[in-house]
Amino acid sequence: MSGPQTPEHVLDAQGDSSSCRKDEDAREGTQSSHRMLGFSDALLSIIATVMILPVTHTEISPEQQFDKSVQRLLATRIAVYLMTFLIVTVAWAAHTRLFQVVGKIDDTLALLNLVTLTAFLITPCFGQFSLMVTFPDVPLGIFVFCVCVIAIGVVQALIVGYAFHFPHLLSPQIRCSAHRALSRRHILHLVLRGPALCFLAAIFSLFFFPVSYLLMVTVIFLPYISKASSWCKDRLVGHRDPPAPSAEVFSFDLHEPLSKERVEAFSDGVYAIVATLLILDICEDNVPDPKDVKEQFRGSLVAALGAYGPHFLAYFGSFATVGLLWFAHHSLFLHVRKATQAMGLLNTLSLAFVGGLPLAYQQTAAFARQPQDELERVRLSCAIVFFASIFQFAIWTAALLRQAETLQPAVRFGGQEHAFMFAKLALYPCASLLAFAATCLLSRFSTAIFHVMQIAVPFAFLLLRLLVRLVLATLRALRSLRPPQPLPSRAPEEAQSRLLPSSC
Amino acid sequence: MSGPQTPEHVLDAQGDSSSCRKDEDAREGTQSSHRMLGFSDALLSIIATVMILPVTHTEISPEQQFDKSVQRLLATRIAVYLMTFLIVTVAWAAHTRLFQVVGKIDDTLALLNLVTLTAFLITPCFGQFSLMVTFPDVPLGIFVFCVCVIAIGVVQALIVGYAFHFPHLLSPQIRCSAHRALSRRHILHLVLRGPALCFLAAIFSLFFFPVSYLLMVTVIFLPYISKASSWCKDRLVGHRDPPAPSAEVFSFDLHEPLSKERVEAFSDGVYAIVATLLILDICEDNVPDPKDVKEQFRGSLVAALGAYGPHFLAYFGSFATVGLLWFAHHSLFLHVRKATQAMGLLNTLSLAFVGGLPLAYQQTAAFARQPQDELERVRLSCAIVFFASIFQFAIWTAALLRQAETLQPAVRFGGQEHAFMFAKLALYPCASLLAFAATCLLSRFSTAIFHVMQIAVPFAFLLLRLLVRLVLATLRALRSLRPPQPLPSRAPEEAQSRLLPSSC
Repeated sequence: MSGPQTPEHVLDAQGDSSSCRKDEDAREGTQSSHRMLGFSDALLSIIATVMILPVTHTEISPEQQFDKSVQRLLATRIAVYLMTFLIVTVAWAAHTRLFQVVGKIDDTLALLNLVTLTAFLITPCFGQFSLMVTFPDVPLGIFVFCVCVIAIGVVQALIVGYAFHFPHLLSPQIRCSAHRALSRRHILHLVLRGPALCFLAAIFSLFFFPVSYLLMVTVIFLPYISKASSWCKDRLVGHRDPPAPSAEVFSFDLHEPLSKERVEAFSDGVYAIVATLLILDICEDNVPDPKDVKEQFRGSLVAALGAYGPHFLAYFGSFATVGLLWFAHHSLFLHVRKATQAMGLLNTLSLAFVGGLPLAYQQTAAFARQPQDELERVRLSCAIVFFASIFQFAIWTAALLRQAETLQPAVRFGGQEHAFMFAKLALYPCASLLAFAATCLLSRFSTAIFHVMQIAVPFAFLLLRLLVRLVLATLRALRSLRPPQPLPSRAPEEAQSRLLPSSC
Repeated sequence: MSGPQTPEHVLDAQGDSSSCRKDEDAREGTQSSHRMLGFSDALLSIIATVMILPVTHTEISPEQQFDKSVQRLLATRIAVYLMTFLIVTVAWAAHTRLFQVVGKIDDTLALLNLVTLTAFLITPCFGQFSLMVTFPDVPLGIFVFCVCVIAIGVVQALIVGYAFHFPHLLSPQIRCSAHRALSRRHILHLVLRGPALCFLAAIFSLFFFPVSYLLMVTVIFLPYISKASSWCKDRLVGHRDPPAPSAEVFSFDLHEPLSKERVEAFSDGVYAIVATLLILDICEDNVPDPKDVKEQFRGSLVAALGAYGPHFLAYFGSFATVGLLWFAHHSLFLHVRKATQAMGLLNTLSLAFVGGLPLAYQQTAAFARQPQDELERVRLSCAIVFFASIFQFAIWTAALLRQAETLQPAVRFGGQEHAFMFAKLALYPCASLLAFAATCLLSRFSTAIFHVMQIAVPFAFLLLRLLVRLVLATLRALRSLRPPQPLPSRAPEEAQSRLLPSSC
């Protein structure tokens, strides 16, 4: 059945050590969890971002003013969106920790993880939060939510139990620990703590539901509460040595830095979903109806499409913004070595505002139709872009505070790429702030200002590269007049490597 | 500014060789292209899949029969969806090749790639295909499409030119080649061949557009045409040695296998988007309106949600199907070493049907409301699931034909996991075929049969694992009665490694 085997194939099959390792895994029935975790990240980021839809689909009729009632409705929905986003991110972080403990997976774990993901997907999609907002006095929403959380907790406890039953699935750090039973108890405690509180909340929701809301808020902030309480205890009792047996357990704790790869994967998911939502909006609304074309535009398709021009402009601008924010995030994380907890939190906040970009698109597309109240809409859009980018800048600032741990040398203070990174990350906050200020002064041209801002920034990014190169060249020329620096300069080798195929 | 540096940190910073390499890259301004390519894969898979929306959003009013006209409309839209999916996949394959030539990226290349992606995103989203279908006689759709393809070609040519101008960005294979100038000319020729034809098509579209359609079809099948023509020439002239100078160029050619990682990333993207589309459908339609609850259900939210029960069931079933098809794909590609061209094509076809699953959901949700014509709808859903899974099975068959190259030893003929993989991949084709046959015999219960199928298969997957384990254990017991096999058995070590932390 197999084709003619040339000697290269045989060599290939025997010589490749990584494929040998894979064969070994296959014989044991285990697999690297890399692809499964990537898929989980994608789905969880979808869940987090999709809750922007009730906000963007808030219907405002053309004759309705952008008044107090609409503002209150929008504000409530935005608050719900932000809350859901934070909750899903907490759940995602817990998922990340869990699979830092479980190093390899087999088919059963992969299936159990799919069950967890389904439960995750159902949790916001039974529309509990929509239910909670639409019917705040009916405890059904919170009851369903609690049942979902308990289900997730039970499945995760099953995953932990299964992995400890077959220790070759655990990460080497835990597998080699002398206190494995202790670790297991500790991890199960952490996994089941939230669901236990939710069980209480579910019971309370049947007769006195305000307590349930309180318990749910406790679940969300549980890691921070426990951290604060242990910190207070430390202060009161005096500083002690950390207990030795639980040292290897801390990798499951929420105070440890997250895996940088999974932060990147989650962020990419959010950016990709925002792009999808933009595409969906433009695909659904903007193919002209054949009847309309015949009646209104006398059969001229070009004229009909021309009427959609402002939409396409808004879409272009929003897509360029998403793309360039992703680009800035990508550039930043290329130089990040390790994501601390503060950086993770700031990243989540930045992503929450990136998730709001379809709202900005909706707003700019809407005022293409109804020019009154455009000022508020433009300002809302500017604010969303500003917050999304300023939190990116804050990640960078937080990283600089502990630069020896968190950053590559090139972007630290005094590093070669430091100035360029600063310029890259400062561009969007400055541009959106400028646009906001401009709308205050020239309120009549606010739409034009916003569109100019959205379309000018991409060119600014391209020019930035040139400008920073010019500045760096000038600085280098100035530096060459001074005595040489103590750092070993690699410039001549670099020039050579660009001219010759030096790595051959 | 920097925190207290413990000696570990210093050690960490100096000792880690991978971070040293990253620092070197940072100094040269280059970056690994891994994350950018993952993001591109995600966006391209979104574009490919999103074209299912015009199909799922075909509105069929309740009193309308599922008759000929509706069937013709659906068939046209499905054909357009499949065509777009294939075109985007061809474009994605070309993108993969391009970044097999360009090994590393810098900021300029990342920005140029973002521009390419934007152009890609616009191409289907200006709705040319919807335009072409809705207004087949108006050449505007094809004109816009051609302009987009030309723009993509120009940007890709810029990427190639830039990468050859700074050779340290090229993949080592090309960088070290003696015939770099020749490679460059060859690659530019390949990149610009399609856009040149599209330029002709754009000109023809202004006065005689049937020629444009013909030219476009030529663009899609260009690689196959050129392959076939060269094969014919070989047959006619007689077999010659391949020309030596262009040997290193072939990695850009469409006949070479694709990178397995990017095939996985693209597939994951499609599965994730299908899950998103399912979530969007359920999120938008299924939160009951407060007014309806008051009027129709006398304020009882539970009763109102109960009315949505069939929807939730359809959603559950479809989501389980997507998840398990992903699981089968994941299991298969874990054991794949290299994806040949035939496997890539079969994977594309499988993904095209996976992209049709939201349609299956829409259909099952629709017949929850209108029970007449449910037979056709159930059969359509069964057919979609069947084709999606049978093409997965075909990938596996195609891989087995060249198993020495393409598969890990464990899943080859006679391998340990062979039977289990067979069972996993055969489950969905069998189940959907069975459901289809059952609807022919018991047409009255077709909906029930379909739901039972969707909900029973996940349990079948879990039981499958147990069953295959039982069968394997029986086989091993039988084998132990015979003389030992020539292959080295690892069973005792395996048992030990599960009991003891052997790798410590």
